[in-house]
Amino acid sequence: MRAVMMYGPGDVRVEEREKSRIEEPTDAVIRVTAACICGSDLWPYRGAEPLGITPQPMGHEYIGIVEEIGSEVTTLQPGDYVVGSFVASDNTCEICQAGYQSRCVHNVMMGAIGTQAEYARIPLADGTLVKTPGEPTPDLIPSLLAASDVLGTGWFAAVAAEAGPGKTVAVVGDGAVGLLGILAAKQLGAERIIAMSRHADRQALAKKFGATDIVSERGEAGVAKIKELTNGLGAHSVIEAVGTQEAMDQARQAARMGGHVGFVGVSHDVDIDGLELFFSSIHLHGGPAPVRQYLEHLIELIWNREIDPGAVFDLTLPFDDAAEGYKAMNERRATKVLLEF
Amino acid sequence: MRAVMMYGPGDVRVEEREKSRIEEPTDAVIRVTAACICGSDLWPYRGAEPLGITPQPMGHEYIGIVEEIGSEVTTLQPGDYVVGSFVASDNTCEICQAGYQSRCVHNVMMGAIGTQAEYARIPLADGTLVKTPGEPTPDLIPSLLAASDVLGTGWFAAVAAEAGPGKTVAVVGDGAVGLLGILAAKQLGAERIIAMSRHADRQALAKKFGATDIVSERGEAGVAKIKELTNGLGAHSVIEAVGTQEAMDQARQAARMGGHVGFVGVSHDVDIDGLELFFSSIHLHGGPAPVRQYLEHLIELIWNREIDPGAVFDLTLPFDDAAEGYKAMNERRATKVLLEF
Repeated sequence: MRAVMMYGPGDVRVEEREKSRIEEPTDAVIRVTAACICGSDLWPYRGAEPLGITPQPMGHEYIGIVEEIGSEVTTLQPGDYVVGSFVASDNTCEICQAGYQSRCVHNVMMGAIGTQAEYARIPLADGTLVKTPGEPTPDLIPSLLAASDVLGTGWFAAVAAEAGPGKTVAVVGDGAVGLLGILAAKQLGAERIIAMSRHADRQALAKKFGATDIVSERGEAGVAKIKELTNGLGAHSVIEAVGTQEAMDQARQAARMGGHVGFVGVSHDVDIDGLELFFSSIHLHGGPAPVRQYLEHLIELIWNREIDPGAVFDLTLPFDDAAEGYKAMNERRATKVLLEF
Repeated sequence: MRAVMMYGPGDVRVEEREKSRIEEPTDAVIRVTAACICGSDLWPYRGAEPLGITPQPMGHEYIGIVEEIGSEVTTLQPGDYVVGSFVASDNTCEICQAGYQSRCVHNVMMGAIGTQAEYARIPLADGTLVKTPGEPTPDLIPSLLAASDVLGTGWFAAVAAEAGPGKTVAVVGDGAVGLLGILAAKQLGAERIIAMSRHADRQALAKKFGATDIVSERGEAGVAKIKELTNGLGAHSVIEAVGTQEAMDQARQAARMGGHVGFVGVSHDVDIDGLELFFSSIHLHGGPAPVRQYLEHLIELIWNREIDPGAVFDLTLPFDDAAEGYKAMNERRATKVLLEF
């Protein structure tokens, strides 16, 4: 099968690899029908994060058709059309039952397996995979694929930030996750959604997804602008979808006293001063999004065409051109790249 | 009037000062009926925090009788018996209405005014002071005084940690706030409450307040013990009531994935690593407790003798012996000191 492998910073290749196969009786193997590149794939691409192994199989978002199931898989059949989270989970342990499937006691990070490939092994298939109501029409595939990570992560960020009716939500980060955090905040009933973005194309998408205001300033000037828009108090809810010190500071400071910050950018060299946090009186919650918790609901919204998260894909390339996809996202020529087989 | 003044680390004196008087039309002046010393008063006493001015009037907890009211005070009369929070608040602004009275847009920290004195000026009296149902019998005074800060702060910590039915709550810190966090967790319906303490007298009080388990280990060993008691997962809820790096680390690590940490120890040189926080998937919330939010409820529980938070006072001294009270708390000979007039 063909698979994307990263050999080092900036060095991504599509190669022929041994076909994925059942390794554990709880595994399934799916034929991936569309793959994509995540903002988090860019950290090792930029050399900001080491590779686990070299070469590293890449990708953790997926949609596909069950090809084969292990002997202990009971809820799936070959031919089922499925979506799963970027973290495999049993969906039965105490942590899963509490809604934190991404931190399942048996969790497997799909990024270590790689789903930018023609076939992918999905551990804990019964707990991980969710069937779509049938075979999706081609126009639904990008949205369903987005549910696997960026939509589910944006949704979690909005939930963690307690976006809801009567709330003003500020969103730091205009990548796919930040943009879908806007969509989620809108779906959760937020009254006002302030997108922080300086890119005209992303501002347009932010508005399409539900942003009511755009703030193009950053850092202290950005925080001042948010305060200005909120009677000097700050936003009730802030989504941090970047993972840098600047973004975290901006998010904390843009929140009002007693407000909520939901952070889903994987933190890189981020440091939080305890005394500042104490006197900010905010609620801080984040981490790897428990996408599995939201999948049924997200699939339903997509299937009924109530949301169109697939709009974040602004570049579609043949699978064999994955390297160009990484390059385009790294150079910010694309927000999110879909790879077609 | 007599008042406690701090001249520098270790130097506390009871002095004759000008009597407190109305300065703003929204002020009240109360005759303080009992005063006490807070763990946070020990930070400057130990030289770990600078004084605001020298000498610094001390104290921020209070109970007393209204002596005089400003021209705009409408809900109080001289003679009313009252309790207030350690932060004065208007109780009407948007932040107060959201339950964060300690961060009121007009908040005044009572520690800057000083309530270890015969009389105290209370700003924003209508918003700040809560009347007791009548004149309390002497046995209720310590408990009502505790409501002003340590009980209200422990209560907020338990709420911030989402203590409740079915939850296992771990409490880091066996000072007055930690102990009253146990009482609060019990009142909120927690199933299991693990007190972290190595002092026999405090362990006994922890059990009296509702602790079901005692862990005497600290740091990593303490965390390991909490995991051992919770199927390897960690506590659902953790209260941090110290304010040091060690206590914050212990609290974060003792919480399970998706759990809640409520921190009320004023952070001193505490640093939180963003990536560790990300992968811990905890909810982190704390700050100066919005005691005012809970006062009516706490007064009712005390008045009906459903709770006895006054039990944290283990040393009562004449007001003129305040310096000895500071010394006893600093040397950990006393958990909390009440000063009688």
